[in-house]
Amino acid sequence: MPTKKIDINRWLDKLKRIEEKVERLALLSQLSQILNSTLDHKEIQRRAMEAATRLMKAEVGSLLLVDEEKHQLYFEVALGDREEDIKTISLNFGEGIAGCVAQHGKPLIVNSPGKDPRFFKGVDERTEFETRNIICVPVRVKEKIIGVLEAINKQGKGKFDKEDLSLLNSLADQVAIALDNSRLYQELEEMFFQTAESLADAIEKRDPYTGGHTQRVTLYSQAIAKRLQLKPLEKKWLKIASVLHDIGKIGIEDHILRKPEPLSPEEFDIIKRHSDMGAEIIEHIRQLRESIPGVKYHHEQLDGKGYPDGLKGEEIPILAKIVAVADTYDAMTTDRPYRKAMEKEAAIEELKRCSGTKFDKGVVEAFIQAYRRGEI
Amino acid sequence: MPTKKIDINRWLDKLKRIEEKVERLALLSQLSQILNSTLDHKEIQRRAMEAATRLMKAEVGSLLLVDEEKHQLYFEVALGDREEDIKTISLNFGEGIAGCVAQHGKPLIVNSPGKDPRFFKGVDERTEFETRNIICVPVRVKEKIIGVLEAINKQGKGKFDKEDLSLLNSLADQVAIALDNSRLYQELEEMFFQTAESLADAIEKRDPYTGGHTQRVTLYSQAIAKRLQLKPLEKKWLKIASVLHDIGKIGIEDHILRKPEPLSPEEFDIIKRHSDMGAEIIEHIRQLRESIPGVKYHHEQLDGKGYPDGLKGEEIPILAKIVAVADTYDAMTTDRPYRKAMEKEAAIEELKRCSGTKFDKGVVEAFIQAYRRGEI
Repeated sequence: MPTKKIDINRWLDKLKRIEEKVERLALLSQLSQILNSTLDHKEIQRRAMEAATRLMKAEVGSLLLVDEEKHQLYFEVALGDREEDIKTISLNFGEGIAGCVAQHGKPLIVNSPGKDPRFFKGVDERTEFETRNIICVPVRVKEKIIGVLEAINKQGKGKFDKEDLSLLNSLADQVAIALDNSRLYQELEEMFFQTAESLADAIEKRDPYTGGHTQRVTLYSQAIAKRLQLKPLEKKWLKIASVLHDIGKIGIEDHILRKPEPLSPEEFDIIKRHSDMGAEIIEHIRQLRESIPGVKYHHEQLDGKGYPDGLKGEEIPILAKIVAVADTYDAMTTDRPYRKAMEKEAAIEELKRCSGTKFDKGVVEAFIQAYRRGEI
Repeated sequence: MPTKKIDINRWLDKLKRIEEKVERLALLSQLSQILNSTLDHKEIQRRAMEAATRLMKAEVGSLLLVDEEKHQLYFEVALGDREEDIKTISLNFGEGIAGCVAQHGKPLIVNSPGKDPRFFKGVDERTEFETRNIICVPVRVKEKIIGVLEAINKQGKGKFDKEDLSLLNSLADQVAIALDNSRLYQELEEMFFQTAESLADAIEKRDPYTGGHTQRVTLYSQAIAKRLQLKPLEKKWLKIASVLHDIGKIGIEDHILRKPEPLSPEEFDIIKRHSDMGAEIIEHIRQLRESIPGVKYHHEQLDGKGYPDGLKGEEIPILAKIVAVADTYDAMTTDRPYRKAMEKEAAIEELKRCSGTKFDKGVVEAFIQAYRRGEI
């Protein structure tokens, strides 16, 4: 009889462990869905660290990414109150547990870090955190190690074991895929912006006095947007509108665009058509429609004296209000065929003077804040 | 004692089932990695169907996607010999098991399809396949049903059960995420091409005689590439090079670009600079570098009499050889300020005449094949 009883207990124990495994695998599947359902790099990193913490039943989790040039790992994210501290720390390859994993590509479990010569005390010292045990696996994209995923301090009095390792390895594979998809997406997005910028630059070059104008307007617009708390998508449309705001000048003839003397009223009427023409070009691109208002109306004024439609006040879309201020400031502070550039402070005064009549007050304020902070 | 024995058998049975569940969850995790490790829509669809087949231990699996406009489901892929047949079938919403799942958003298991009025016999009839049982779940992206995932005929004599349903639901969630990421990527890629095309069009519009040239050259290049079996990445660089091949004309002054009379040798030398200038614009965009040869050398000739560098024969990159033929054919078959368009057949004869001297023989041959097939 006693032997039978022991058998049953062993079975029960085995059953319990395996049921727990089912739960953890189901959790892994759920976490991998969460990981893959965004293409935002930062967000994937945050979710990876949370996933490692939950899946490992640990106190904290972190994702360290490889900086190939510096041969270092840096803490991109980590959970807990001390997040800001941890973010600033980087490890050399081979330094600390994470550094060893990144160098050799082999996962590690260290249940007594104090006794392990590889353990790097720097992080604990700077964060007043006590590492009791640590599990760490490489994150690989096509055989290349792009980072390491780790969890620290198993909850309760437990230690990390082989099953943890197998689960964390699977999670790391999912993290690698999600990060790689995000990288591909961001590279494509970058390619889009760079191409649009290069073409805008090339178009600008027909007008020898406006070199770099597009890039500066884009920079200024983004600095304004940061302070106006635009939504991420609005920021994206604003960036596109800024890059393409003068694209309609492609249709203006050389002899007008390049005229060194001041323009006649008739010539100025032709120049004025560039905002409408720019909007027309963009209208053909379904995915860019949201950015059209910023291009079409960037010469409108609050008092209705702008062009092309003489819109007033709140009729003017926010994207256009922002591009208008960025565009005007850059026009004032660069040389033109018929006049020298204005001093920056004088241009700021001019923006202030026209705030509420030509320009939106909030936009001008945001611009000046960014200027005072040296962002412009 | 007998009761004890039964208990143990029950435990053993339970243990066996739960161990199987562990295996299937591990498989789910593996399949979701496979699904998410590509951003190619077709490839995800193929992997989804394979995954459903494996995870369900079924004979076939399919993924049906919603066509929103037609209110239909269509078989995007399905496993087995009859794949081509199955691909051509579409179901109306509410029609068949899959149509019901798409309409109501509720998963279904049908273990006796012959007795189920919802079952649509059309597919079996057209494919000489016998559906014994079927499991079908909706594929949702942000609450919206974009398709259904199904598996048909459990291997052996088994039937589909609740556990299958739970696993297939999880797989469908992963499929939804992978398809959605792929959609976002492809929309961005489309945005890139459309923007580049629109800007190229706008630049073209300065030259009133070349409207639509860029689009046609891109179309012709792609028709050639299909026959030359270029790699997918080469095709992508070719497409970009075709769209941007004349981008350097942005830097050519109106009075030369628009001159209705034939150009003087000096003016022609200026026009010739457009291929180098185009390459210079693109050089600033890291991700587009691979397409530069197609832009820079699209006016080179096999006999070395082209420009800008007078490259000969195999020195000329394949992208440039393709753009050259597409570009020349379009130039010949459209009106120019100083001459009328040539007849298509005459232009083909001219390509043939210059094959091996100006143009690559293989490229000309591919072009003519595409032309004879009505693709050009």
